[in-house]
Amino acid sequence: MNHQALFEQIKKKASYLCVGLDPVMERIPRHLLKAPDPIFEFGRQIIDHTADLAVAYKPNIAFYEALGAKGWESLQKTLDYIPRDILTIADAKRGDIGNTSALYAKAFFQQMDFDAITVAPYMGKDSVQPFLEFDNKWVILLALTSNEGNQDFQMFRNEKGRHLYEEVITKSQEWGTKDNLMFVVGATRGEKIGTARALAPEHFFLVPGIGAQGGSLEDVAKYGMNASCGLLVNSSRGIIYASTEQDFGKFAQKEAEKLQQQMEKYLQQYCQ
Amino acid sequence: MNHQALFEQIKKKASYLCVGLDPVMERIPRHLLKAPDPIFEFGRQIIDHTADLAVAYKPNIAFYEALGAKGWESLQKTLDYIPRDILTIADAKRGDIGNTSALYAKAFFQQMDFDAITVAPYMGKDSVQPFLEFDNKWVILLALTSNEGNQDFQMFRNEKGRHLYEEVITKSQEWGTKDNLMFVVGATRGEKIGTARALAPEHFFLVPGIGAQGGSLEDVAKYGMNASCGLLVNSSRGIIYASTEQDFGKFAQKEAEKLQQQMEKYLQQYCQ
Repeated sequence: MNHQALFEQIKKKASYLCVGLDPVMERIPRHLLKAPDPIFEFGRQIIDHTADLAVAYKPNIAFYEALGAKGWESLQKTLDYIPRDILTIADAKRGDIGNTSALYAKAFFQQMDFDAITVAPYMGKDSVQPFLEFDNKWVILLALTSNEGNQDFQMFRNEKGRHLYEEVITKSQEWGTKDNLMFVVGATRGEKIGTARALAPEHFFLVPGIGAQGGSLEDVAKYGMNASCGLLVNSSRGIIYASTEQDFGKFAQKEAEKLQQQMEKYLQQYCQ
Repeated sequence: MNHQALFEQIKKKASYLCVGLDPVMERIPRHLLKAPDPIFEFGRQIIDHTADLAVAYKPNIAFYEALGAKGWESLQKTLDYIPRDILTIADAKRGDIGNTSALYAKAFFQQMDFDAITVAPYMGKDSVQPFLEFDNKWVILLALTSNEGNQDFQMFRNEKGRHLYEEVITKSQEWGTKDNLMFVVGATRGEKIGTARALAPEHFFLVPGIGAQGGSLEDVAKYGMNASCGLLVNSSRGIIYASTEQDFGKFAQKEAEKLQQQMEKYLQQYCQ
């Protein structure tokens, strides 16, 4: 799926919602524990109830990896269950020397067939490049994350007043295009999304941090939207843990709908 | 294993060698392919022939992960086979928002029982802290890596002339101690190890980049060694792929011995 195809999906669904899948055995509805694979069953029902409202799903790899070999099976089954016209993002934050990144790329893009993977930029070009060499696959590079620790190094500033996250956004555009490179830009500080947008006018941003982490959906649209939308806004816990009742899927759907309806409004307002 | 216990092992073996385990199905000796678990069998024979010469083993997680669920089984078996007085390092380069890092920490420190894990610093304190909360476990934080891409962001410099990798070394010492925090400092530029050592006089450094990547073992000792040695120097391909014959283990042993003998000399010369 390239840049244009993703925008087509966004227009079709009037949504730029990414649903984050962070399944924890202790938090999923109790009645699912009887299923042969509770983690997959949880994901399956979330997907059934949100697939019409979301343009992307983002399984957080740590949550599956923490369950060992069984977790990797649940991940693969969940991934296979996602309809093919929806972007699939492995939230793995990998990044290593070239031959190692090449192996990670092979694991996530070929063996598992994800469309996209989140990558940490610290090790530079030769750690990112191997992921960019796959056709029709995406690197989503960490730029400005939504956690408190973003202050520690991402805001490190050079003599010209440029922050590290700005340098990441600028330099990496020499390596990838708007068709294979996105950036993680957190929602927790709206005006910073505007700074990022000025540096990468055409690239998609994956935006975490609305809901539980306090970011505003309106600010994200106002500062971050471009003529092709250019946004994937992630919500995880607010949707998937909306309820732990038997009919938790319907509650998830309701939360996703609320976000989709706001997104529809912002698409009309800011995307031209 | 704390700082002092690690130094005791180094003195006992007159070695600060870390053997990197990067098993690739295509590169391991052909006769191993008949074994029920060739990747484990390869690791087992490498360990049998180098355990007297090494103070640490560092399985590169990507190489196991690339093999899917079966790879994770091989990893666990390899880890369990390593003698308990040898430090085990998961070269995973993880790092994510707090609750996700906590899951990674649980996976590598509790489920798999590694002694140490490599962590990427980009997301800052709350992404590193969860790993530091485990007793007797180590974070090995990326500071200056040995790949070409280290020029892209690690050398980003603030108005006082301080590089990002220096900031990482300095700031993270507010989070961890010499008993639970090490740094990755590459061997490819000897004098930079001296800069890192000045910033962290007491911490251990995990040093990649000698051998295939061109770093000099003597420079590493000269610039990096402190009164408790303070170094773990990694060699992967130079040892594990020294031969693909039936008796590849003996060739691995010979290469490890060469390094150990040089290390013994440098310990006498620079460690006081």
